[in-house]
Amino acid sequence: MARPSSDIDAMREQLLEHCEDLIRERGAVEFTVSDLATLAGMSPSNVYRYFESKEALWEAMAERFFREKNDIMQQVVASDLPARGKLIAFFGKRLAVMRSRYEDDPKLFSDYLDLGDDHFEVVRGYIDLADHYMAEIIAQAMAEGYFTGLEIDDTVKLMNCMVQPFVSPRVMIAFWPTATQERLEQVIDVMLHGMRAGNNAHQPGLKLVN
Amino acid sequence: MARPSSDIDAMREQLLEHCEDLIRERGAVEFTVSDLATLAGMSPSNVYRYFESKEALWEAMAERFFREKNDIMQQVVASDLPARGKLIAFFGKRLAVMRSRYEDDPKLFSDYLDLGDDHFEVVRGYIDLADHYMAEIIAQAMAEGYFTGLEIDDTVKLMNCMVQPFVSPRVMIAFWPTATQERLEQVIDVMLHGMRAGNNAHQPGLKLVN
Repeated sequence: MARPSSDIDAMREQLLEHCEDLIRERGAVEFTVSDLATLAGMSPSNVYRYFESKEALWEAMAERFFREKNDIMQQVVASDLPARGKLIAFFGKRLAVMRSRYEDDPKLFSDYLDLGDDHFEVVRGYIDLADHYMAEIIAQAMAEGYFTGLEIDDTVKLMNCMVQPFVSPRVMIAFWPTATQERLEQVIDVMLHGMRAGNNAHQPGLKLVN
Repeated sequence: MARPSSDIDAMREQLLEHCEDLIRERGAVEFTVSDLATLAGMSPSNVYRYFESKEALWEAMAERFFREKNDIMQQVVASDLPARGKLIAFFGKRLAVMRSRYEDDPKLFSDYLDLGDDHFEVVRGYIDLADHYMAEIIAQAMAEGYFTGLEIDDTVKLMNCMVQPFVSPRVMIAFWPTATQERLEQVIDVMLHGMRAGNNAHQPGLKLVN
């Protein structure tokens, strides 16, 4: 029964595009299933065949918003690159995606961020997922001799503190054009180099062991 | 004629406290000189004796908001500490001030940030001033052997990219309790250590020279 399933997926995707049209038209304002049904030319009860609840609709919108970035993270983690190359791709490719979306339509981008704030419980899962992938790269980096004496979770937190202009959309907007790909690579090298095995001894003040 | 001048200063300070009362009462909404006059029990023309324009009032409010942080920066830069100690005090003392203000009254703190967004041309000068003080500490750090091969301006930009959860009030709020004093010290040590003279050679990928 592959055909019906893909028909349903196609209609879901089309409805999500209509959701985006509603955001473009009205901004980051809540809309109802009835609004969506009107735009799609179907009855509200028909919309519920594709999204069983308003919450399911928000979740699908978030999934669509994060899909490209999630694919990037998955591919980078699965690649054969050394840790440094993975970190540069992990942050750099997502930065490029966000930057391009922002440039395509700054207002829509900003409205999506506002909607994300209003539905943070949905967004939270994608942030946790990114942390999970980052932890996998950090584990590899540890095997390569970086982050000596640190726990993986602490390294994730420390790294998140140091890369905000490259990952957080609002900070990214405020930091453009400072937060370039070139500067991202500098930041990654400073982090790797500042926490490399054997280097800590040169810096008596370094308190990286918990 | 010190007396009249200090009387004027005292009244200006009192009017600025009334401004804060207006923000507490109404949120981050514009208020008029007439609103302020009513609260202070004086005529609007009398208010203009202390602040010659609405713009002068916004500037004085910003000066009052940033005063404590500016004093900290000035004292830290003038101190005898080595660069590492200066950086820790430069960021850490201001973080503690912001954190304490936020905890005292999160709503007022957030309203001040919104007002700052609406009057960014006034806030900009304080951000530039902080960059100027940071550049002075970085120059000292360079004399101590850090940041080899980097220009001061580039180091300011690079460092700003890596410390957002400790300096930008909104990022700070989102990052609490991750952005602690202890983690700040880790970040500073990673930056100093990752850009220390002689260390670059160990890391072939490090591209810190412009």
